Amino acid sequence: MTSLSTWRGRFERLRSNKVFETFVIAIIILSALLIGAKTYEETSRFEQALLVFDTAVTIFFLVEILIRIGAEQRLRDFFRKGWNVFDFLIVTASLIPLDDSEMVLLARLLRIFRVLRLVSMIPELRILMVALVKSIPRMGYVALLMFIIFYIYAAIGSFLFAEVDEFLWGNISIAMLTLFRVATFEDWTDVMYATQELYAWSWIYYLTFIFLNAFIFLNMMIGIVLDVMQKESLAIELENGEGEAAELHGLRDDVRDLKAQLSRMEEALQRRGS
Amino acid sequence: MTSLSTWRGRFERLRSNKVFETFVIAIIILSALLIGAKTYEETSRFEQALLVFDTAVTIFFLVEILIRIGAEQRLRDFFRKGWNVFDFLIVTASLIPLDDSEMVLLARLLRIFRVLRLVSMIPELRILMVALVKSIPRMGYVALLMFIIFYIYAAIGSFLFAEVDEFLWGNISIAMLTLFRVATFEDWTDVMYATQELYAWSWIYYLTFIFLNAFIFLNMMIGIVLDVMQKESLAIELENGEGEAAELHGLRDDVRDLKAQLSRMEEALQRRGS
Amino acid sequence: MTSLSTWRGRFERLRSNKVFETFVIAIIILSALLIGAKTYEETSRFEQALLVFDTAVTIFFLVEILIRIGAEQRLRDFFRKGWNVFDFLIVTASLIPLDDSEMVLLARLLRIFRVLRLVSMIPELRILMVALVKSIPRMGYVALLMFIIFYIYAAIGSFLFAEVDEFLWGNISIAMLTLFRVATFEDWTDVMYATQELYAWSWIYYLTFIFLNAFIFLNMMIGIVLDVMQKESLAIELENGEGEAAELHGLRDDVRDLKAQLSRMEEALQRRGS
Amino acid sequence: MTSLSTWRGRFERLRSNKVFETFVIAIIILSALLIGAKTYEETSRFEQALLVFDTAVTIFFLVEILIRIGAEQRLRDFFRKGWNVFDFLIVTASLIPLDDSEMVLLARLLRIFRVLRLVSMIPELRILMVALVKSIPRMGYVALLMFIIFYIYAAIGSFLFAEVDEFLWGNISIAMLTLFRVATFEDWTDVMYATQELYAWSWIYYLTFIFLNAFIFLNMMIGIVLDVMQKESLAIELENGEGEAAELHGLRDDVRDLKAQLSRMEEALQRRGS
Repeated sequence: MTSLSTWRGRFERLRSNKVFETFVIAIIILSALLIGAKTYEETSRFEQALLVFDTAVTIFFLVEILIRIGAEQRLRDFFRKGWNVFDFLIVTASLIPLDDSEMVLLARLLRIFRVLRLVSMIPELRILMVALVKSIPRMGYVALLMFIIFYIYAAIGSFLFAEVDEFLWGNISIAMLTLFRVATFEDWTDVMYATQELYAWSWIYYLTFIFLNAFIFLNMMIGIVLDVMQKESLAIELENGEGEAAELHGLRDDVRDLKAQLSRMEEALQRRGS
Repeated sequence: MTSLSTWRGRFERLRSNKVFETFVIAIIILSALLIGAKTYEETSRFEQALLVFDTAVTIFFLVEILIRIGAEQRLRDFFRKGWNVFDFLIVTASLIPLDDSEMVLLARLLRIFRVLRLVSMIPELRILMVALVKSIPRMGYVALLMFIIFYIYAAIGSFLFAEVDEFLWGNISIAMLTLFRVATFEDWTDVMYATQELYAWSWIYYLTFIFLNAFIFLNMMIGIVLDVMQKESLAIELENGEGEAAELHGLRDDVRDLKAQLSRMEEALQRRGS
Repeated sequence: MTSLSTWRGRFERLRSNKVFETFVIAIIILSALLIGAKTYEETSRFEQALLVFDTAVTIFFLVEILIRIGAEQRLRDFFRKGWNVFDFLIVTASLIPLDDSEMVLLARLLRIFRVLRLVSMIPELRILMVALVKSIPRMGYVALLMFIIFYIYAAIGSFLFAEVDEFLWGNISIAMLTLFRVATFEDWTDVMYATQELYAWSWIYYLTFIFLNAFIFLNMMIGIVLDVMQKESLAIELENGEGEAAELHGLRDDVRDLKAQLSRMEEALQRRGS
Repeated sequence: MTSLSTWRGRFERLRSNKVFETFVIAIIILSALLIGAKTYEETSRFEQALLVFDTAVTIFFLVEILIRIGAEQRLRDFFRKGWNVFDFLIVTASLIPLDDSEMVLLARLLRIFRVLRLVSMIPELRILMVALVKSIPRMGYVALLMFIIFYIYAAIGSFLFAEVDEFLWGNISIAMLTLFRVATFEDWTDVMYATQELYAWSWIYYLTFIFLNAFIFLNMMIGIVLDVMQKESLAIELENGEGEAAELHGLRDDVRDLKAQLSRMEEALQRRGS
């Protein structure tokens, strides 16, 4: 029992050790680079060495996560933090034995995701990620609005232009992909010139689409900047204002005390005068 | 008479029912997806089923809008809200019987617009749309300025480069389309290299055009952000300042009361002293 | 003498007449549209009609500017306003008789610029233009910095890649044009793939160039927004703060008056007490 | 000894002379333009003249930097300023004798960098550069996050698509370059259409990549604007608030003095009354 809590203490110290943290980050980067190296042509001997290293890294990550679990008082505490669950999933995913020749690809892909552990290890990246996740709902409704516009234009496009180019306008989902291409300005005039041969006025379709997109995108950006700014400045004003308001309030109380005192004095003077 | 107002009550309750609202949204999405599905190749049996469903959706939308009309006290109240008119137009447009083989396309297009009812059903999208519509006048004059620049460049372009490429610079409206292509950087160097063979200095034409556009666009964006921001911060300042100003004003009144009281006391003292 | 001042009065009233202003704007737009129409293929009769109209517009503009000159007390007053000089130059430029077949093109180009008079006629566009002109110095130094970067990269590019493609890297000015193309992402990979065949590491050249550009551009935009914003908020704060500061100052004076009064009273009491 | 300090004084006066500064800037620009001219085809006589001028410029720059060193009290003082070290490196680099035919290219490249001395000569550009350098750490972590995303996508891409196009997806570093091309929207649909023939669902790969990039980039820009803005407005508020807070504090002290005075008077009155 005592030995167990001693171990926990050791694990805790090890977990918060800066050197250990840097070592883990170095291993993550090295492991990622080697996965990259694997995609080059390999000699069989080099491949052997890589296999050994890869197994070593897998075991190291397993040990590291066990240490971090051991440092917690209860197993539940470990899984309460989202980043721990994130790390746990990445490490266990790379443990799954996939030795079939068909599954080797999937096993490799799972190992690539180990580089994502950098995000959970470096605090600044963690802050960035949290900020990104927080901004998702704000952008969600704009995305929905844009999707509706894409959908309507894709439906119109697939009705009208399918006969021009089956490959670009064959059905509504292909048309949406083509519209996304137009939205990124990628050879969009080629698409337009092709449909203009049949429908001379089809430039209206493309120009309204591009302007609508640009208009909504611009408004969204401005909206988000103003939205966040307003919250920030309100927070600052409130914080700042509270201090000043408290000061003003105190001043007013002081002045009221003065008034009460003066009234007492006036009364006393009058009483004596009479 | 009583039964009519009872029905109105029931309709009102139904209209503001969350479950009913979600159901309407689900029907809108399903109906939109099926219009999408129609553009894929269809077997005749599947087409039959679609036709039945489409008729059902049309009737459902009609009933839904009748319920919403019934929930209002007077017919006029219903049409006073812009969104109701918007919904009414979309629903009635899809009611028009267009059975001619030529008109089938138009009937389908009208049905696509039913997906726009999502905007009027989801409050967050409604807010977004209102914000978009409000920003139109602000952007209008910049659009006019850009149009003037496009027009002048298109006139120059169609004068000079028409002999180089009739397809790109044939007349002033085609030249404006070509300039829009240049503004989106879509293979603009191909356009330039072609004209440079005849007019070696024509790169000046393209570069000044691109820089003018970028310059005005940048200034517009900055202008809009600052414009909206200024209004926001003024509003916050005023709101905040009003509270503080009221507090300061009250304080000053208190101090003036003190002064009056003191003056009375001083007078009393002097009178007694004399 | 009297008749002259009467005429001036009439001219002044005409100049500030809303209907007259709208009429001038309509003539400007019509004239611009007809210049556009000229670039289409024309029958000789239509061309005749156009020639007559064009002469009429030229005369009308001349009369209009004479009226505006006549409305001023002195000729000097008219040329003091920049917009008047702007209008005067545009109108006189289209008066120059250019009947040689070679000069016809130039005459037409000069007439296109008449559409610019819209900017001087519509107040909102005038405000926009003034804001644009004001932002030029702010952007000038960033443009200089970017030019230096373009120049250095163009020099390196023309040294190294001239043998790869004479057309793209032949000399330093051609190389700058090619780099501008890379900066707009216009088929930049084609340029890169060509040089990579000789210099495998040349992707470093393109990537550093793109990142440097993006980095400076981003910083410039942020810088400008903050710069303008800071001035705005300072102005608001000062304005707002001045009111509050005056109030606070007044309050402090009031309190000092109170103190002086109290001191007088205390003295009086002590004198009587003794 | 005296003569040495006299010389230092003269050098100091010369260094801060506006005319001398402008002359140095003119020489820098002229020298840069001539390096540009060198890349054009040259006659042997013109080349001779250039060689003489180039030597003259090199000597002039050497003398100029010696004057600036001489103007300082100690040699150490000169090298303490970063911009001086920057100038010194550029000038000495162009002094290295590289007469081998192979090294001529390097010598020329080193001379191009002399145009960078414009940055150290013009104060506004110096301020811009300092602002740019300061913004690097802020952007660093976003760059790291983007690199991780590029790396993961490149690894997946090189695993899956290598068989489609060895030239684009051959190994992980080539795949990263291809992804950068996709991120700049440069013919990205060609890349996608090629892989879609083998993997029909590969559009998901490209769309998620583009959206992730756009999302992070947008958030970064908004983040930076807000970050800098918050600091600015906090600074303004503090500055502004301090003045007001001091005023309020002084007022409160005044009121407390009043209270003390009144208390003394009340006590005196009571003492006399008893």
